[in-house]
Amino acid sequence: MPEKLLAHIDTPEDLRKLSPEQLPEVAAELRDFIIDIVSVKEGHLGASLGVVELTIALHYVFNTPLDQLVWDVGHQAYGHKILTGRKNIFHTNRQLGGISGFPKRGESIYDTFGTGHSSTSISAVLGMAMASAIKGDTGKQHIAVIGDASIASGMAFEGLNHTGVTDANILIILNDNAIGIDPSVGAVKEYLTRVKTQRKPAQHNIVKALNFDYSGPVDGHDLPALISELSRLKELGGPRFLHIVTTKGKGLRKAEENQVLYHAPGKFDRITGEIVKKDTAYDLPPKYQDVFGHTLVELAGNNEKIVGITPAMPTGSSLRFMMDAFPERAFDVGIAEQHAVTLAAGMATQGLIPFCNIYSTFLQRAYDQVIHDVALQGLPVIFCLDRAGLVGEDGATHHGVFDLAFLRCIPNLVIYAPADETDLRNIMYTAQLGLRSPIAIRYPRGRGITPRWKTPFRKLETGKAKTLKDGNRIAVLSIGNMAHNTTLAIEGLPDDNKPAVAHYDMQFVKPLDEALLHRIFTKFGILVTVEDGCISGGFGSAILEFAATHGYSSNIRRLGIPDAFISHGKVGELQEMTGISPEKIRQAISSLL
Amino acid sequence: MPEKLLAHIDTPEDLRKLSPEQLPEVAAELRDFIIDIVSVKEGHLGASLGVVELTIALHYVFNTPLDQLVWDVGHQAYGHKILTGRKNIFHTNRQLGGISGFPKRGESIYDTFGTGHSSTSISAVLGMAMASAIKGDTGKQHIAVIGDASIASGMAFEGLNHTGVTDANILIILNDNAIGIDPSVGAVKEYLTRVKTQRKPAQHNIVKALNFDYSGPVDGHDLPALISELSRLKELGGPRFLHIVTTKGKGLRKAEENQVLYHAPGKFDRITGEIVKKDTAYDLPPKYQDVFGHTLVELAGNNEKIVGITPAMPTGSSLRFMMDAFPERAFDVGIAEQHAVTLAAGMATQGLIPFCNIYSTFLQRAYDQVIHDVALQGLPVIFCLDRAGLVGEDGATHHGVFDLAFLRCIPNLVIYAPADETDLRNIMYTAQLGLRSPIAIRYPRGRGITPRWKTPFRKLETGKAKTLKDGNRIAVLSIGNMAHNTTLAIEGLPDDNKPAVAHYDMQFVKPLDEALLHRIFTKFGILVTVEDGCISGGFGSAILEFAATHGYSSNIRRLGIPDAFISHGKVGELQEMTGISPEKIRQAISSLL
Repeated sequence: MPEKLLAHIDTPEDLRKLSPEQLPEVAAELRDFIIDIVSVKEGHLGASLGVVELTIALHYVFNTPLDQLVWDVGHQAYGHKILTGRKNIFHTNRQLGGISGFPKRGESIYDTFGTGHSSTSISAVLGMAMASAIKGDTGKQHIAVIGDASIASGMAFEGLNHTGVTDANILIILNDNAIGIDPSVGAVKEYLTRVKTQRKPAQHNIVKALNFDYSGPVDGHDLPALISELSRLKELGGPRFLHIVTTKGKGLRKAEENQVLYHAPGKFDRITGEIVKKDTAYDLPPKYQDVFGHTLVELAGNNEKIVGITPAMPTGSSLRFMMDAFPERAFDVGIAEQHAVTLAAGMATQGLIPFCNIYSTFLQRAYDQVIHDVALQGLPVIFCLDRAGLVGEDGATHHGVFDLAFLRCIPNLVIYAPADETDLRNIMYTAQLGLRSPIAIRYPRGRGITPRWKTPFRKLETGKAKTLKDGNRIAVLSIGNMAHNTTLAIEGLPDDNKPAVAHYDMQFVKPLDEALLHRIFTKFGILVTVEDGCISGGFGSAILEFAATHGYSSNIRRLGIPDAFISHGKVGELQEMTGISPEKIRQAISSLL
Repeated sequence: MPEKLLAHIDTPEDLRKLSPEQLPEVAAELRDFIIDIVSVKEGHLGASLGVVELTIALHYVFNTPLDQLVWDVGHQAYGHKILTGRKNIFHTNRQLGGISGFPKRGESIYDTFGTGHSSTSISAVLGMAMASAIKGDTGKQHIAVIGDASIASGMAFEGLNHTGVTDANILIILNDNAIGIDPSVGAVKEYLTRVKTQRKPAQHNIVKALNFDYSGPVDGHDLPALISELSRLKELGGPRFLHIVTTKGKGLRKAEENQVLYHAPGKFDRITGEIVKKDTAYDLPPKYQDVFGHTLVELAGNNEKIVGITPAMPTGSSLRFMMDAFPERAFDVGIAEQHAVTLAAGMATQGLIPFCNIYSTFLQRAYDQVIHDVALQGLPVIFCLDRAGLVGEDGATHHGVFDLAFLRCIPNLVIYAPADETDLRNIMYTAQLGLRSPIAIRYPRGRGITPRWKTPFRKLETGKAKTLKDGNRIAVLSIGNMAHNTTLAIEGLPDDNKPAVAHYDMQFVKPLDEALLHRIFTKFGILVTVEDGCISGGFGSAILEFAATHGYSSNIRRLGIPDAFISHGKVGELQEMTGISPEKIRQAISSLL
């Protein structure tokens, strides 16, 4: 379809020059534009397709960027980006040097608040609205768009609870499509379902109970209805709440039919929606996620004490496998990391063995619960921290690079990072045999290195490292998947340099293999540590602490993520940037030889 | 009053042998027992007085410890402790080696879950109830008692949202006294007020909307009513919710009249309730909290961009001073640390200067928000982390000892620890002049060292340390209030040793004073670092990292909190235990001379 209208829209001001009757045509073109680009460049699809009409209506009715608009999470903000000056660079989405896949303040004045993690929008917008009131800026509007999965998270509730007792000029739009990345769960979801299906005012309206002026539900794909209701709400003051109902993936049949798959489908045919098959050559290494999922099912089949918990990531984490196999023992608790961790703690008090799978970056949401509810009580919860290290295209909001640093200071906690899929299997096996303390197992996103990963289980010894290669001048200590990069780095050295370099896969960040470390420090004057986490306070610092405690004065060079937020791009590109690619590790070793 | 009944009650089993008619007498005796001991031994008073009847009713109706009872927070659990085997050691409450002021699993089989931080009880109890279901243990009851301030926190909502879609055998008792430590705030509080004052079913019942079987409100001091309702609810299945109304401080007139003061009043007269006046000698150093509060008012008077935020600690933090002086710019947001931080971030986007005051231990609840909403966006929020370091009698759940380690890995964040009250004033002054990045200012609970603290403001240079004493053999690098302990330690050395020891108050943990550090490492072969935070990943590790990065091989000895959870006791006792008292620091220095 030729872009007759969209071609002339660079900013919302251009949009506002159109008549209301032209807007459905803009919607059709915008939807096509998103599909065209995402089908070849990849990215998040379904959420943005679902809010095409809302995006247009908001920028049409409100005076952005003066009026402040915050998109919760931000999966849904592609249309917003395209209408706010980024149409011509939208094809760089999520690429190194290109625009971010999420709203980002540094990128545009229309992106009023960066949103990669969910459920922050109400607090952020309330802050803006209260600031306007304090500054006497009475004409400004403040709008949060939040999904039904995100609004059920505790943080959003805290925002609602506060907003309801202010007279802040704030409009919260609930984009209710009954799905986050996976289908929504919980009592709020059931409540919303009742509201929608009964098609009448709910007897017990949570939103009204919290002092909001509630309106809806409105069909979120009906542009005239949206514009009419937004225009009406714009004239009112105080906390307002609009409930709209949309379909995730709207406008692409396959995306509507399989909303989980089309959340971020990879490449697909722009007409049929058919997903482009990826290389499925025999013996491709598996994803760590699948190793986790299949292994958990295997273990749970033999140990009825095992339970699985995920906060809203059954598909992404592959906990779905256990939910299918043992539905009575595997739970998606929604976007509720805090609850997930303490629920696991409660189960552990009764002798169950909880595998609590949380993305590394989202464990930041449950940090206190790990300390206060799990570690302090010594409860043997097994944390599986998915997407640890650099995650690639999701960028700065999603890299799981702080975990080693923020977990290492917690007493009683064992911290493990598998070097490959077999290690992941074996530590999961070992952990469920019965630990006296909690353990955090952190592993990366995506494929590993071991095609034939499904090996017989082997019990690992806590705090025991592996010697991968002997050497006589430099000891390289790697953790987790950096073992592989380091192996490649050493292979890349000139042959006559190779005997100089020893390589140890440390396996455990806590407790460290102290016996081995004593031997290493006794033998080597030069050490290199390699981690895909932040070097401030991370694994390398643990080695420094060991050396200081025991009075070793070897020269220790630490490789890891520098003290800066790392942007989006391919994992390999980002490893190169941060100095932990095989080539950069090789260079670092060479410079010390 | 002679304890005619209580004297014979060692466990709830003894209680259950009494007739219902005897229970009011037990309540009276239990109340007196609490007052008698707390009046001389100090501790939390009001919360436990408010639930005397509930405590008796729960242990009377339910089959504890088989039935699982979780007290949210745990301020309220004194009566529970006294009735469950700890009557004779209750006088050791909160003392070193004595019982904990909070429920603690290691202490008693009746303490099913440790609760020092709020709002965890629903998740914990749900975990227990789901575990019972999985294990086929159908007869077991699972009960959470949670206050109205705690239930409005996001984590509790996450627990409710999940519980409402289970058929877990769980009873949640809302202990509604309209106050946490300070009076409750927020829309849920207003909602509950409507429910109570209208004395009829609320039109929009949040609890019913979340699928609970709701009953109440019941007078929580009416033992027959409580026992009758609990007995009825005990026979029902699924998620049940009982709303009871109590008076905090019930039974001691002054405690009822001034509930904030009598939350933890210190020593008081057991008959009149009159608080025993503390030593108010002239020129006593002020509390850091008061320095914060008064200084903020002073600054806010001159800078209209300043706003203040506290999550439910206006009195404890002294933000109350600004709330009184500038009510339109100072906010208590309730127990909502996550919201507090992102609200501050939202305000900062609009050019306001938020002072966000959070206890160090509770910042653990908002860790992701500090990273994702504040630091990643480079928003100049000023975090004032109260009660950093060892807090004393509140113990392991409340020590603020992890902050330096978990904050140090966050890019863009400045971290500062004042050595005294003047430093705190000056960094607050400096921060509000305009920072380009967020800052975390961490300071201890209680009194400082400078009676005449209200000095003219002076701008501090970011990353600039102070040389407190020159020396020629050992450099001691202290942070925050450890400067004082270190000064005392050096004063305690034999006179002929003193010239050997230099002392630097580093002031900033991030960025470090690198110019000074280069001079120190060039001059000294022996360094000692001193911090009242965990040595794993903390300030000392930052110094190790600096040394490693720049190839210095000085011998570095780190003093700080060891890698273990530290119990309750007097701060001085705990400093002695952990090796950071003046005497222990002196010994460490001596051993290196």
